[in-house]
Amino acid sequence: MAAAKNVLWIMCDQLRFDYLSCAGHPRLHTPNIDALAARGVRFTRAYVQSPVCGPSRMSFYTGRYMRSHGSNWNGFPLRAGEPTLGDHLKDIGVRNVLVGKTHMKADIEGMARLGVDPGSIIGVHVGECGFEPFERDDGLHPDPAPRPRYDVYLREQGFDAPNPWEHWANSAEGADGGILNGWLLAHADKPARVPEEHSETPYMTRRAMDFIAAAADDDRPWCLHLSYIKPHWPYIVPAPYHDMYAPDDVPPAVRAEQERQHPHPVYGAFMDFRVSRNFADDAVRRGVIPAYMGLIKQIDDQLGVLFRFLAARGLTDSTMIVFTSDHGDYLGDHWLGEKDLFHDCSAKIPLIIADPSPAADATRGSVCNALVEAIDLAPTFLEFFGGTAKPHVMEGASLLPWLHGRRPAAWRRCVFSEYDYSMQEARLALNQPIADCRLFMVFDGRWKYIHATGFRPMLYDLVADPDEFHDRGADPQFAPERDRLRNALLDWALRDHNRITMPDARIAPYAGRQQLKSGILIGYRDEAEVAQAKARLGLA
Amino acid sequence: MAAAKNVLWIMCDQLRFDYLSCAGHPRLHTPNIDALAARGVRFTRAYVQSPVCGPSRMSFYTGRYMRSHGSNWNGFPLRAGEPTLGDHLKDIGVRNVLVGKTHMKADIEGMARLGVDPGSIIGVHVGECGFEPFERDDGLHPDPAPRPRYDVYLREQGFDAPNPWEHWANSAEGADGGILNGWLLAHADKPARVPEEHSETPYMTRRAMDFIAAAADDDRPWCLHLSYIKPHWPYIVPAPYHDMYAPDDVPPAVRAEQERQHPHPVYGAFMDFRVSRNFADDAVRRGVIPAYMGLIKQIDDQLGVLFRFLAARGLTDSTMIVFTSDHGDYLGDHWLGEKDLFHDCSAKIPLIIADPSPAADATRGSVCNALVEAIDLAPTFLEFFGGTAKPHVMEGASLLPWLHGRRPAAWRRCVFSEYDYSMQEARLALNQPIADCRLFMVFDGRWKYIHATGFRPMLYDLVADPDEFHDRGADPQFAPERDRLRNALLDWALRDHNRITMPDARIAPYAGRQQLKSGILIGYRDEAEVAQAKARLGLA
Repeated sequence: MAAAKNVLWIMCDQLRFDYLSCAGHPRLHTPNIDALAARGVRFTRAYVQSPVCGPSRMSFYTGRYMRSHGSNWNGFPLRAGEPTLGDHLKDIGVRNVLVGKTHMKADIEGMARLGVDPGSIIGVHVGECGFEPFERDDGLHPDPAPRPRYDVYLREQGFDAPNPWEHWANSAEGADGGILNGWLLAHADKPARVPEEHSETPYMTRRAMDFIAAAADDDRPWCLHLSYIKPHWPYIVPAPYHDMYAPDDVPPAVRAEQERQHPHPVYGAFMDFRVSRNFADDAVRRGVIPAYMGLIKQIDDQLGVLFRFLAARGLTDSTMIVFTSDHGDYLGDHWLGEKDLFHDCSAKIPLIIADPSPAADATRGSVCNALVEAIDLAPTFLEFFGGTAKPHVMEGASLLPWLHGRRPAAWRRCVFSEYDYSMQEARLALNQPIADCRLFMVFDGRWKYIHATGFRPMLYDLVADPDEFHDRGADPQFAPERDRLRNALLDWALRDHNRITMPDARIAPYAGRQQLKSGILIGYRDEAEVAQAKARLGLA
Repeated sequence: MAAAKNVLWIMCDQLRFDYLSCAGHPRLHTPNIDALAARGVRFTRAYVQSPVCGPSRMSFYTGRYMRSHGSNWNGFPLRAGEPTLGDHLKDIGVRNVLVGKTHMKADIEGMARLGVDPGSIIGVHVGECGFEPFERDDGLHPDPAPRPRYDVYLREQGFDAPNPWEHWANSAEGADGGILNGWLLAHADKPARVPEEHSETPYMTRRAMDFIAAAADDDRPWCLHLSYIKPHWPYIVPAPYHDMYAPDDVPPAVRAEQERQHPHPVYGAFMDFRVSRNFADDAVRRGVIPAYMGLIKQIDDQLGVLFRFLAARGLTDSTMIVFTSDHGDYLGDHWLGEKDLFHDCSAKIPLIIADPSPAADATRGSVCNALVEAIDLAPTFLEFFGGTAKPHVMEGASLLPWLHGRRPAAWRRCVFSEYDYSMQEARLALNQPIADCRLFMVFDGRWKYIHATGFRPMLYDLVADPDEFHDRGADPQFAPERDRLRNALLDWALRDHNRITMPDARIAPYAGRQQLKSGILIGYRDEAEVAQAKARLGLA
């Protein structure tokens, strides 16, 4: 009997597309991720549907754009009844399992309206956006938020504190032995207090292995979402990773003075954020980015452990392995910190897929520059497991054709991404109504057009200006490109996305004959006309 | 104690805006509806969100555009979890009760996914789109569809048959005593076989009175949706209404020969429908429209009965009465039958609201030409009952300000309507992909712009061309109007409509201070910067 097919879906949080050696990073060596790329396809133009954790992840987990799932920001509950990848996999007998972060917030009000008990099996499925939570840990645990199992683990190892996550895994120590707050950029150059083996990334890796080992007793195939919080801030990493990279290993910031001259108002408001102002200072970059690189290096090392574990269990040949991230990190590029806007370092993600199927042999080690969206993963997994595509629900497209070296007959011409800044200080700074705090990116592979409700658009030519320094949004010379992409945005915005209860296959047969078969006679003049129509359709 | 406030929400099916004497019909006298208009406000520019039963009604019942609720066509289930007027009223202790038609189809698959038993109290609420079904009857009952209670009623009155609805209420008799199929236009001039008192309109009126009488024993206020199937086809009415109007009472068709010359492809495809070809024949119009008028006259008479009943029970002063329709009927105008497109006789509806509140005294008997949408009714009712507005869920706006003689500070500049013709033969005739069978109307009070995916737009100037004979969609002279309305369409299409789990009131306080209070410190450089920020916000 062939081994069950499985998917191991690894996601980092806030990992830029270009902080991997296979993607060309000059100093950071990630041999295990590179080896995965050598066994699979590395997609070079994969974009998230919203460059911030919560909505980006809800798009990954539903296969639907942000405008469709409606969870526009971290902590905005995904509505009860929104179909998830987990629903589709459950229908075909595949477990959809979580180890790590989803950023899901349950729609308790919606569940109550539907009489769904949050503690029931269905309630947990709905409340965890379709995942079976082997271990749920969103990775940020300030006081007094609900505590993760990792706290218990740390205490078991002897690392006690009111908040072990913060005080051991995300704090440093001063020369005087005092606790230094790991949330603060100033302390990024120090080692976290926790020994490396007990820090979050190895812990989550072991939890993934715990699940895989336990799943051997279960016939069902699985899709395991191993979702690391790192290299997301707090930017702090335990020894030896804390000083594995030096300030001189930090690539120079990708920014130009002209970007600060008369910027687009929304861009300007984001440049004015505290985090952006801090990252504009090279001293901050040189202190923080080595820790960011160390966190990535630690992940790569742990993936080595994990991949060897899979191989030892004989699972490599039956497991599709996916490596990606939920968005990038500006790290001072473009005078910005964090993510949120649509420059490539924020909205473009690393994406590597190694499909063990023989059909994928022809593409191993190759690079694919097709325009890919995060919402493509859910349909990819569904097809990999043999499920029927659901384009009326999932708005992405399966990547299997690309993995198998077949160019799809039709493929999207643009990728889309959205952002809702109503929770950001930019709303106040720009005095925007909540409903108008919206940005939309359309990128066709060359031109990146950004629609900003209430403002002029932005426009970048990534061929002439790969660093995205020159905003052509107000330049009359580029009106044709703006018009074209604005039309693409209109087409996208008008496209159906909520007709989720009716597949095309049930629509297709109706127009020709079903109506007459139903016995509802619309607009027939007389008996003769009905008889003619029935005869024409071959009905009795 | 003041009497509980109630709403009596009367809906006709397929009633044109102009087939009432208060709206100027030259031959049809509707004194009871006119009297309601004299007590309330008649809205002259009310548009449905889709000119066909199912999606139009789902917009009425949710307060949301078709693109938002996703039930694009008759029989497309409204997704489980889609918030309805009934949900919002239930939250404030108001019963939302149905007598008659909704065209709702339950989302059995979605309910199963959520573990909702369709037979449970919540299951019925969800499956009936938020209504308590005192009597559910969608009004079209060919063999072998599920049978209505009305069948039982007819049998109790001695009108037996395998299908009493069809054979008594919607058939005529030939000279030879044979049954004549009432679905057929040819028989519209004959009386239905059922005696008038046992026909559908008086039956439903009595059922409404049954509910109102029974509700006297219940403290809860109610919103009663009395939803007549008529004057929807089958176009057949019992005596004496069948010959109350003569062929010469039929207004001439509003159509021009030029409309058939080089029509827009979508319009042309609809003109080619069987029902349109039949209504293009004046013989059909002169046979059918007197029956249509008789059906309306019967409704008006029954509303007289109902209004006297309310008065006798002392309910008139506490009951808001609303009279409207789910869309119109071309009846041969513009060379079309049925509804489906956006000419006023299809997409514009009658809407009369009589609010008993003293605040509405100033507007009684007036006409309001504000741009109104069907989705405005749900928020109107919620406000009337004292509920809190939910603009993040309901996309319409309460009409109470207009009813109380206050012009809202901000009001929409355009109304929008949508149509999905994937279930129509036009899809085949035009060889359109299912997803592209979409039309969108934008009307600003003068210009009516119709976006047809895959085709050029249509454009009508209702000031210069009130009969909508001249399509300016390809005329270079009107490019500025097209561009302006296309921009309005883009703004509308990009507007949020699925962020239903997060009200503005929970977003508003975040940007300024909540983030710091949460303990998540983003981008702070050091302790001093945190201390400064806390001091600025007055946090400990």
